[in-house]
Amino acid sequence: MRIAIVGGTGDFGEGIAVRLGVHTDHEVVIGSRTAEKAVEAAVSYGNNIDDESAERIHGASNSRAASTAEIVILAVPPFHVRDTVRDLSEQLEETTLVTPAVGLTKDETGFHYQPPDEGSVTELVADAAPDGTPVVGAFHNLPAGQLADLETDLDVDTLVVGNDPDAREMIVELAEEINGVTAHEAGPITNAPEIEGITPLLINLAQYNEQLHDVGAKFC
Amino acid sequence: MRIAIVGGTGDFGEGIAVRLGVHTDHEVVIGSRTAEKAVEAAVSYGNNIDDESAERIHGASNSRAASTAEIVILAVPPFHVRDTVRDLSEQLEETTLVTPAVGLTKDETGFHYQPPDEGSVTELVADAAPDGTPVVGAFHNLPAGQLADLETDLDVDTLVVGNDPDAREMIVELAEEINGVTAHEAGPITNAPEIEGITPLLINLAQYNEQLHDVGAKFC
Repeated sequence: MRIAIVGGTGDFGEGIAVRLGVHTDHEVVIGSRTAEKAVEAAVSYGNNIDDESAERIHGASNSRAASTAEIVILAVPPFHVRDTVRDLSEQLEETTLVTPAVGLTKDETGFHYQPPDEGSVTELVADAAPDGTPVVGAFHNLPAGQLADLETDLDVDTLVVGNDPDAREMIVELAEEINGVTAHEAGPITNAPEIEGITPLLINLAQYNEQLHDVGAKFC
Repeated sequence: MRIAIVGGTGDFGEGIAVRLGVHTDHEVVIGSRTAEKAVEAAVSYGNNIDDESAERIHGASNSRAASTAEIVILAVPPFHVRDTVRDLSEQLEETTLVTPAVGLTKDETGFHYQPPDEGSVTELVADAAPDGTPVVGAFHNLPAGQLADLETDLDVDTLVVGNDPDAREMIVELAEEINGVTAHEAGPITNAPEIEGITPLLINLAQYNEQLHDVGAKFC
């Protein structure tokens, strides 16, 4: 399968790209606004992994990355998500769209969940996506640093919401191809806010606990 | 130390009472609106544990339970929390008040977090509590069934918020006296909503995953 990571040049993009590259046999296409930046990131991600895996990680413009992929992961900041989805609407028609983004606000005490008017970023993406393109919320709370460091044995969960059960299951299966990631279905997109809300909580835990930097969540 | 569990005759009350009874040497006072119901619950909790632990679990009216305790855990439904705190205000003056309650709503897709106007149940309790009584949010996401079943080796986290760092630390230490519970500080009460929001999420996970009934969360 071919998986595009739109906006995939940041920390989360790197983490998910190297894990998909090393733990699965899918093709991974890093997308960025310029193809040059995407190719540069893809090469850099490949430098730290074995050659065979590195060969499966490519770079392209966001538009080209999305148009050639079966699954598109939207690794863009929450305030760019809507515009990104609209700009790519033609390229997204035959894909399953995955959104890990979360709306955050910050004050002197910590980070807080700030959903958009639609109720969650996942709902916002579903509103903006082309009709018929299934939208799945997933990968919100994976620790980017742990993902990118292949020396780390992962042991984290990801929760998956979406209104199309087949698309949800597809992303659950994809997530579980990554060693050490367990994916759980969490129902339709109306259940997204509580999942997105874990991200600011994880940042707060890092602020108040030295040993809890870059952690994920497990449910057991 | 003496710990009161106001409204302690429900599932969570039972779970936290038997764990505190068995794993710590504190006195535990189950509170209920009538002393009879509280005593009956205390006797019933004691029937499943060793005699020495059972002797440390008592029953009393909510008012009497609160007036003799250093720590009061409010194991009451969220819509009763405000009235309970106001009714007990005299008895709560010398205590540290702990609230595990969460506001929930339910629709056909699942449970959703519904904070009160104050922003969180923890904030509501802080507003209603007597001046000078420290309020701590904790124990929100502990699985009641696992707690009550002493055959289960716990391996769960609890997150602790409060505006008084000493009170927060006291409750972190108390929680960690329970074998298998790890407590993490999560800052002031403004950080409570994301913690309270995990409870509906856990209920949704149980709905969509057979193997995830009565689970807690861990952060790692």
